[in-house]
Amino acid sequence: MKSLVATPMSTEDSGTYKSVSTEAAGMITLSSDFGTPYPAAMKGVLLQHTDTRLVDVAHDFPRQDVRATAFWLREVLPYFPPATHLVVVDPSVGTDREAIVVRTGGHALVAPDNGVALPVARRLGDPEVFTVSYEQDDPTGEADTTVGWPPNPDSSTFHGRDVFAPTAAHIHERGIASFQEDPAIDPTEEYVDLTFPEASVDEEEAVGEVLAIDGFGNVITNVPGRVLADRWGESIRVNGVWASAQQAYAAVDEGHRVVTVGSHGNVELSVNQGRGDDAFGVEVGQRVRVAL
Amino acid sequence: MKSLVATPMSTEDSGTYKSVSTEAAGMITLSSDFGTPYPAAMKGVLLQHTDTRLVDVAHDFPRQDVRATAFWLREVLPYFPPATHLVVVDPSVGTDREAIVVRTGGHALVAPDNGVALPVARRLGDPEVFTVSYEQDDPTGEADTTVGWPPNPDSSTFHGRDVFAPTAAHIHERGIASFQEDPAIDPTEEYVDLTFPEASVDEEEAVGEVLAIDGFGNVITNVPGRVLADRWGESIRVNGVWASAQQAYAAVDEGHRVVTVGSHGNVELSVNQGRGDDAFGVEVGQRVRVAL
Amino acid sequence: MKSLVATPMSTEDSGTYKSVSTEAAGMITLSSDFGTPYPAAMKGVLLQHTDTRLVDVAHDFPRQDVRATAFWLREVLPYFPPATHLVVVDPSVGTDREAIVVRTGGHALVAPDNGVALPVARRLGDPEVFTVSYEQDDPTGEADTTVGWPPNPDSSTFHGRDVFAPTAAHIHERGIASFQEDPAIDPTEEYVDLTFPEASVDEEEAVGEVLAIDGFGNVITNVPGRVLADRWGESIRVNGVWASAQQAYAAVDEGHRVVTVGSHGNVELSVNQGRGDDAFGVEVGQRVRVAL
Repeated sequence: MKSLVATPMSTEDSGTYKSVSTEAAGMITLSSDFGTPYPAAMKGVLLQHTDTRLVDVAHDFPRQDVRATAFWLREVLPYFPPATHLVVVDPSVGTDREAIVVRTGGHALVAPDNGVALPVARRLGDPEVFTVSYEQDDPTGEADTTVGWPPNPDSSTFHGRDVFAPTAAHIHERGIASFQEDPAIDPTEEYVDLTFPEASVDEEEAVGEVLAIDGFGNVITNVPGRVLADRWGESIRVNGVWASAQQAYAAVDEGHRVVTVGSHGNVELSVNQGRGDDAFGVEVGQRVRVAL
Repeated sequence: MKSLVATPMSTEDSGTYKSVSTEAAGMITLSSDFGTPYPAAMKGVLLQHTDTRLVDVAHDFPRQDVRATAFWLREVLPYFPPATHLVVVDPSVGTDREAIVVRTGGHALVAPDNGVALPVARRLGDPEVFTVSYEQDDPTGEADTTVGWPPNPDSSTFHGRDVFAPTAAHIHERGIASFQEDPAIDPTEEYVDLTFPEASVDEEEAVGEVLAIDGFGNVITNVPGRVLADRWGESIRVNGVWASAQQAYAAVDEGHRVVTVGSHGNVELSVNQGRGDDAFGVEVGQRVRVAL
Repeated sequence: MKSLVATPMSTEDSGTYKSVSTEAAGMITLSSDFGTPYPAAMKGVLLQHTDTRLVDVAHDFPRQDVRATAFWLREVLPYFPPATHLVVVDPSVGTDREAIVVRTGGHALVAPDNGVALPVARRLGDPEVFTVSYEQDDPTGEADTTVGWPPNPDSSTFHGRDVFAPTAAHIHERGIASFQEDPAIDPTEEYVDLTFPEASVDEEEAVGEVLAIDGFGNVITNVPGRVLADRWGESIRVNGVWASAQQAYAAVDEGHRVVTVGSHGNVELSVNQGRGDDAFGVEVGQRVRVAL
């Protein structure tokens, strides 16, 4: 168990204090597309090995959608203090895909080698990638609920429980700086990468695409928010449709289209108290043209 | 970090021991309509500032429904020991609506100024309301994932992450008794209130309304449960429909209507193993007449 | 509050270290069919009495489905280190059904006496069953949000909050070895049991049934996985339909049927990136014949 060192900050102005986490690497976050109750089995395994804090990011990422999960992790995980992040969206479970650990900016990501961890890893710092060796047991034997490390999975369908959870616990307990001092962990230069396209911006228009649609129906694009600077209150044409550029959804009447900058810093297509995806008629991956 | 003081109780009868929380103010609860994964960004920000316990109340409150959320918070939060409660159902995010803190009965609620926190605040004690000053950055700039206090939001669409989470962390770390000793926090008498109607009860009937319908389809009214005292087993007429007054759903046959007293102390219209809203044909806000 | 005793393991080979939880009985897990926000009221009550770790297993178990919940608990809870497990799927709440505690293999399960806890209890060890005495208050009175122990429920519809949560906190704080030294807790030999059928296997076929279908559409049967040993890559006939026996979903083309061994050790009927329940045309409880 790691001992936590508090880092008190001297602050002269109580109105501008800024605390610093006393828990560097003091947590494991969990992300998956498992719904329930499978994530609880991963938590049980983690708690066989560690008593650190566990924080759920989401377990309802779109099923087997590596790209959507990669997008959301890139938006959310950078708000965490240094942590071990367990990520399992794994359509190739049981094949020969590798299990990897990515160390970056004081964080570690434990994930299948399908690219899901790379976009956020680049945002967090300068990624180093490691493979985790494991021996697959014949899955027709009796399952042992004591799940150790290095991984020796009893199942070939639930490596979240049998490979990734014990690896995340190992990384966390050994420490993000030194987990690689282990015969089962090797640095690698060969791994599956995944990138999101950049929008192109010139004086007349920005051309990008829809990266994601959130639960409210907000359409998240890759067009940088700076194209709306000094345009607040103006009408903007997006894919031939006019909408008001506003900083707040509620700056337009209920049910009206609004073009804004989302919390990720990109142009977002929305409807006040409604769904932007319906009103702008776009889906993930489709082109978005913003006339400037 | 707060040091926790255990308060052992001497108990002479081991059969009636009553423990007392050793964690007064030792947690932050989270409530929103965000679904996933946005609440994880709030948790990341909280954990940049505090290592206290985080407890999810719900993140699937009806979208942008201040009234429904206010109802459920009033039913659930009073069961917590003193805590800081972060509440973000915020259809007016990015407009000039205030961010407030409500201190009441040893608890603090951090919420947008739209009334969502007031019904539970009155149930918990005698509310004092404070505003939180924050400066909105231009949201077209680069987002900084280090979110400090006082709030200086990079986004105008996700104040849960950029305003309310750092405020809740600040309140928690400073302490519920003394958080207001800060230039960004000011007492106010002007805030948005929200109240639920009272039922009228006379000797012949009780007339109220539907406050909420839960996930089981149970219809929660504002008619006080005491009107059913001494009526157990009798047939009762509600909106012209007969149903049996029972303490347990399962006291009637499967699929049959039952009028009971819910866990909130009010009359509830239900169906054993079925949906009361369908069987009684009522929706939130509709009138409920109970013949006595 | 329990003092935790760390149990360091001497390990000579750092590559095969095996940690041991330092938190024997150091957590309470929560399982229910409540959705939200009712589980938060249970958490509030627990936190009135204990500052232990709380871990959600699931709160979206099929509504009032004791059998499905019992199945999933049997698959998931054995992966936890010794813990107190609060389980509330309780269609008979408010009737004279008992509240029970089951002690088994260092764990304790707190649940309604409807069989939900027994399958997992047998998997964890050798179950001892205790009843919990409680006095039901008239539910038409004012609810007191301070919920003590032994239980004295204000509601007759939410014993999760008023009976089971304070019991779980009591069990946890007294310790799994000694909680029964209490006048409200009595050993019993009479309780509701629940078992799952065994498949029959001979040289020609295995005949079992569908125990559950998970969120991915994977059909979980009670046919032991060993019937697929040495059959990997072969075509297998299940209910007259041919499918490939594979260790990984992704070993067949997208949309194709696959027969595999699930993480529970039983035969599972699946479709790579699709739904096995649709492709094999089966529902929970239906017969499954695997030709060998």
